[in-house]
Amino acid sequence: MILGAALEELGEIGYGGFAIESVAARAGVGKSTIYRHWPDKLALIADAFRTFHEAAGPDIARGSPREKLLAILRHVAEVVVSSTFSACIPALVDAAERDQDLRKFHLHFQREARRPLINVIADGVADGSFPSHVVPELAAFALLGAIFFCRLMTNKPLDPERVGELIETVIGASPQRA
Amino acid sequence: MILGAALEELGEIGYGGFAIESVAARAGVGKSTIYRHWPDKLALIADAFRTFHEAAGPDIARGSPREKLLAILRHVAEVVVSSTFSACIPALVDAAERDQDLRKFHLHFQREARRPLINVIADGVADGSFPSHVVPELAAFALLGAIFFCRLMTNKPLDPERVGELIETVIGASPQRA
Repeated sequence: MILGAALEELGEIGYGGFAIESVAARAGVGKSTIYRHWPDKLALIADAFRTFHEAAGPDIARGSPREKLLAILRHVAEVVVSSTFSACIPALVDAAERDQDLRKFHLHFQREARRPLINVIADGVADGSFPSHVVPELAAFALLGAIFFCRLMTNKPLDPERVGELIETVIGASPQRA
Repeated sequence: MILGAALEELGEIGYGGFAIESVAARAGVGKSTIYRHWPDKLALIADAFRTFHEAAGPDIARGSPREKLLAILRHVAEVVVSSTFSACIPALVDAAERDQDLRKFHLHFQREARRPLINVIADGVADGSFPSHVVPELAAFALLGAIFFCRLMTNKPLDPERVGELIETVIGASPQRA
């Protein structure tokens, strides 16, 4: 509950004005309860992000590279459409520009978060599911980038129903084998 | 000079703390000089963005769709690597979340800015330069998205030298005609 309240505070207020006291009020606990577990706002926010990220991932244990790619990106698009996470993206992006410790956390978290996607694309290129001209890291930037771009630079996030179409545009349709 | 100072202030301080008084000090003019031309900070920022955007665009009067696509995206990548504009992106994205008038300007500006890119991709699909599975708007989101994603979510912006490789990944290599 405290972690959820921390994400709410970050999304609504931003990082600059983020106050442990307001998080305590949102969660209905005392400030000292929060400080007992988290030394400062960065520790609290980092823990909230990690916890929700770990709880929410899609199952990619089985399936073809294309199925896994779809599962991962649909999940990202759904999170971005509606979640306390999504409300935090602009605050995080701005704070990463102005606070070195937050920046370090943000870049590390993002790097870990996109790793499975890059791996799935690399697997698909290796087994011929995806065209050989696809550079996995750049494709991951383009696919995630499209979703984040819509969230931050257009008036509505990408509809998760369009993720299949996005993959077709970026990666190509089903493979044409010789 | 005042418009440049406004972008500097926005990039360094963000929108919340943006002060006409600081812009005046940066530009070495009086506050009243600024207020004579721009009623408020949004008008000043909007004018700065429009002015620099119009002054800086690449020449796409001639060339194939692929050449035009490369010219546009290299320009975007170069602007994002190093410019007062680039420093403003996080501030703008965050402010668009918290201020309705700034949001309206930001979304309108972005929509106009990406229009030529979408048109060039559509032309390329129409004349067979680009594969028919490419949906122009989604491809534009992916290509611009990759550039903005690197700026906001990784430790370094996309190297403009990699824009050709990005286009190859997203749009495919040179056309295979039957």
